[in-house]
Amino acid sequence: MIIVPERLIAGLVSETDVFNAVEKVFVAMARGQARNFPVVREAIGCADALYGIKAGFDQAGLALGLKAGGYWPSNITRGITNHQSIILLFDPETGQVKAAVGGNLLTALRTAAASAVSINHLARRDARVLGIVGAGHQSVFQMRGAARVRTFDKVIAWNRQAEKLSKLADAAAALGLPFEAADLARLGAEADVIITVTSSYAPVLLRDHVRPGTHLACMGTDTKGKQEVEARLLQDARVFTDEVAQSCTIGEAQHAIAEKLIEPANITPLGAVVSGLAVGRTSSNEITVFDGTGVALQDLAVASIAAEAAIVRGLGQEVSI
Amino acid sequence: MIIVPERLIAGLVSETDVFNAVEKVFVAMARGQARNFPVVREAIGCADALYGIKAGFDQAGLALGLKAGGYWPSNITRGITNHQSIILLFDPETGQVKAAVGGNLLTALRTAAASAVSINHLARRDARVLGIVGAGHQSVFQMRGAARVRTFDKVIAWNRQAEKLSKLADAAAALGLPFEAADLARLGAEADVIITVTSSYAPVLLRDHVRPGTHLACMGTDTKGKQEVEARLLQDARVFTDEVAQSCTIGEAQHAIAEKLIEPANITPLGAVVSGLAVGRTSSNEITVFDGTGVALQDLAVASIAAEAAIVRGLGQEVSI
Repeated sequence: MIIVPERLIAGLVSETDVFNAVEKVFVAMARGQARNFPVVREAIGCADALYGIKAGFDQAGLALGLKAGGYWPSNITRGITNHQSIILLFDPETGQVKAAVGGNLLTALRTAAASAVSINHLARRDARVLGIVGAGHQSVFQMRGAARVRTFDKVIAWNRQAEKLSKLADAAAALGLPFEAADLARLGAEADVIITVTSSYAPVLLRDHVRPGTHLACMGTDTKGKQEVEARLLQDARVFTDEVAQSCTIGEAQHAIAEKLIEPANITPLGAVVSGLAVGRTSSNEITVFDGTGVALQDLAVASIAAEAAIVRGLGQEVSI
Repeated sequence: MIIVPERLIAGLVSETDVFNAVEKVFVAMARGQARNFPVVREAIGCADALYGIKAGFDQAGLALGLKAGGYWPSNITRGITNHQSIILLFDPETGQVKAAVGGNLLTALRTAAASAVSINHLARRDARVLGIVGAGHQSVFQMRGAARVRTFDKVIAWNRQAEKLSKLADAAAALGLPFEAADLARLGAEADVIITVTSSYAPVLLRDHVRPGTHLACMGTDTKGKQEVEARLLQDARVFTDEVAQSCTIGEAQHAIAEKLIEPANITPLGAVVSGLAVGRTSSNEITVFDGTGVALQDLAVASIAAEAAIVRGLGQEVSI
């Protein structure tokens, strides 16, 4: 198998590659050609860690495998990333493992691509103001992804600790975008597109913050109990997701479902919109919400690109297992 | 991380190491110090393959990780093993992957060790005749495991295709044990210990084949739908398992449970017997059944031994990921 370490990833895949691969996965899922397996997600009872495994098989892209790892909140004190993951790719014809790929940067990139695909297909064409809720490591990737698919005039952002917004401000400057810190009321009143990307366990953005016509990409909720926006917001919106089963159980929609404000049948797979099987936005006043839970097939697709590029360019390390 | 390829495993772990590690895992599970996570097991719809992931965390042994792979029935025509697997070990303090270990031989060894532990704790001390149902690749490992824990006078075996018994006969000869082929009626009438190790989807060994006092280790059923022995046999026996949740859903007990012949509460974790928390065999007339479903913690324990031995002996390959 080939080992493609974390440090090579940035040189092997471009944001365009990742965007295209993630969009393709949405289509394959909607057509029933690709399937995510049940997610393993466990608090292990050591180092406050959440350990998880996401696996799937894309018959169209012939990608079989898994991503394993999770969230170790005290890694930061050791000088290593809190999110740790590795992606394994298997040969679907023989079951032999063919690649082990560092999954940290790829996860950030595919998560940004997923929200960008949602913005591309669901946000108003004339969206001008991008709002970002949360200023952690992932927020910069999300902003860059969004800027690929709409021409924004400015970025406004909120973070619980306002002093941490500087990294996001720098990244906006690098994109040539004016940047402003704002409270949630102003952010909701001005933004046409809002990305939430926090690790919150209680609603941050409320129904009344959000004006008609907004598209929201809620990217932070990937575990039972997490929540970024008020459940009532989903009731008043059209809700889309990467994977309905995950959306209802570990995604942002889990709360609206639990409170019976919406039903699973109210949630549309984004892939169905991308592939023309379902309608996306129907009016400029509609609120649309993309519940991005993160699926294995996205990880496998981008890891496949990295592994193939490494092979073509003679990078990575071939080892026998 | 260290890569410990399949070809090194035989030189790195002994059957004694594996037996001790598997027994220790049973105890850790019974004491609540180790936990298997929900199993992923999927027919992928390609090459008739069953792909699966077993994961867990042993707080006592500090082993966190997964085994991934499965069963590719047409591999044999390509000259490679039908069962393919890789074991990943993670550092529970940081989530970083620390080892990738070839899992094929280790799976065979830990499965044999699990049935041997069950025989050691549940079979009559005076057991003299070992019966084996099934003559595939795994059967030889099972026989050798059993021979470690009881002094048998002979081995009798049955296989649907009798001509395939020769490998088992050779392995018995290597152990100095007389070997006979037998039909199921004679096997059941003579054996004190019976190991079933088939890939059957319908009962092979029936209730009436088995005499009082027999210990059975049913090792072949690890998937919904598989079945080796008549469900009624479990009703008339005391039933033990590695993992009650798996036993009821993907193990041999799934059928007796579905037919309401037994309840989950009737199934005793073998680890509880090993650690003295539950009684094992209570009389020489009792039939005992061990439902060996195979758990991640066994894989992680034996892979940890292999990885540590490789590091100590300067074997394997250190790679950056």
